[in-house]
Amino acid sequence: MSEVLDNLYKVIAGRKGADPSESYTAKLFSKGPEKITQKVGEEAVETVIAALVKDKDAVVAESADLLYHLMVLWADKGVEPNEVWAELAKREGISGIAEKESRSKG
Amino acid sequence: MSEVLDNLYKVIAGRKGADPSESYTAKLFSKGPEKITQKVGEEAVETVIAALVKDKDAVVAESADLLYHLMVLWADKGVEPNEVWAELAKREGISGIAEKESRSKG
Amino acid sequence: MSEVLDNLYKVIAGRKGADPSESYTAKLFSKGPEKITQKVGEEAVETVIAALVKDKDAVVAESADLLYHLMVLWADKGVEPNEVWAELAKREGISGIAEKESRSKG
Amino acid sequence: MSEVLDNLYKVIAGRKGADPSESYTAKLFSKGPEKITQKVGEEAVETVIAALVKDKDAVVAESADLLYHLMVLWADKGVEPNEVWAELAKREGISGIAEKESRSKG
Repeated sequence: MSEVLDNLYKVIAGRKGADPSESYTAKLFSKGPEKITQKVGEEAVETVIAALVKDKDAVVAESADLLYHLMVLWADKGVEPNEVWAELAKREGISGIAEKESRSKG
Repeated sequence: MSEVLDNLYKVIAGRKGADPSESYTAKLFSKGPEKITQKVGEEAVETVIAALVKDKDAVVAESADLLYHLMVLWADKGVEPNEVWAELAKREGISGIAEKESRSKG
Repeated sequence: MSEVLDNLYKVIAGRKGADPSESYTAKLFSKGPEKITQKVGEEAVETVIAALVKDKDAVVAESADLLYHLMVLWADKGVEPNEVWAELAKREGISGIAEKESRSKG
Repeated sequence: MSEVLDNLYKVIAGRKGADPSESYTAKLFSKGPEKITQKVGEEAVETVIAALVKDKDAVVAESADLLYHLMVLWADKGVEPNEVWAELAKREGISGIAEKESRSKG
């Protein structure tokens, strides 16, 4: 179900250059990197606070906010989600580890 | 390809309770929420800095670090990725919007 | 002129328990540590952004916002500014270093 | 006792351009704004975490770290502490409020 991220990214990227009065996303793009990075930072802080002193639902909600703004940042910088997924797969050696784990469970 | 996140989450969650000397992830879990949230906050700051004054590759690298540590936090709090994907889909009305957009492009 | 911080702290601490409708500071206290730490985090992010891509005046303005909210946090937690000044003096060996420097300039 | 900040700032600013191998502060300056802002962000996150789930001593220690790195940032950007104190005094109308409060207590 993580394809929701890929879908969301397409929707977000489609708002670049759109009329700022028509959507929150278009307004963010129109304000530029300073505002977009500010939101990423703020939502990260709220995720930290939720994880430390709020309940699980708050962590879910703040994480969703963080991911949404992170993808606005990616779209603003021309970063494709696949570049990040590839970096994660490469760095963590996920394929290998996952394969090994699935085999050891088999 | 975003299923790399779901796969990575499984690998991460499988390290909960593992010997801290055997992996960075297991060590993070052993240090608890204070250390895990600290890393989420730090990587968010590095993502912000990369987006403002570094190149695209740095944004990709820092975003990957941020997502990795965010998923360690989710696993620590018992949050399943699907809960976050569902929140994103619900909040942004993604399904609807994506469907409408794909139709208007058809 | 740094006594402005000590004075500001007294004003801030005097608002603890005051009617939230009467001042921004009293309202912050009434919302509790989650809101106060959120503001500290947000202002730190804005200071970072100002330092990287805005002008000196923006750094001054965001730093002032950060210090103000940090002192609200101190007052909320019962931390006296003198405790922080003492920690800074101790940790950095300021007295010693400053003395040595002033002597070497003499 | 808040003059410790003004003194500390002088010591910090005196390290600009010094041999990076001789002090932590000189090393920070040599790494530039990206590293200095990263440290400001990190220490802010640690202050937030300390305030939410650690004790008062941790808040004092993390606040000292935050202020130290913030002053390295000021020195790097050519911001004088007096500019920030003036902004705080101006913005909060401290002089007036403090005077009124001290009178009402008299």
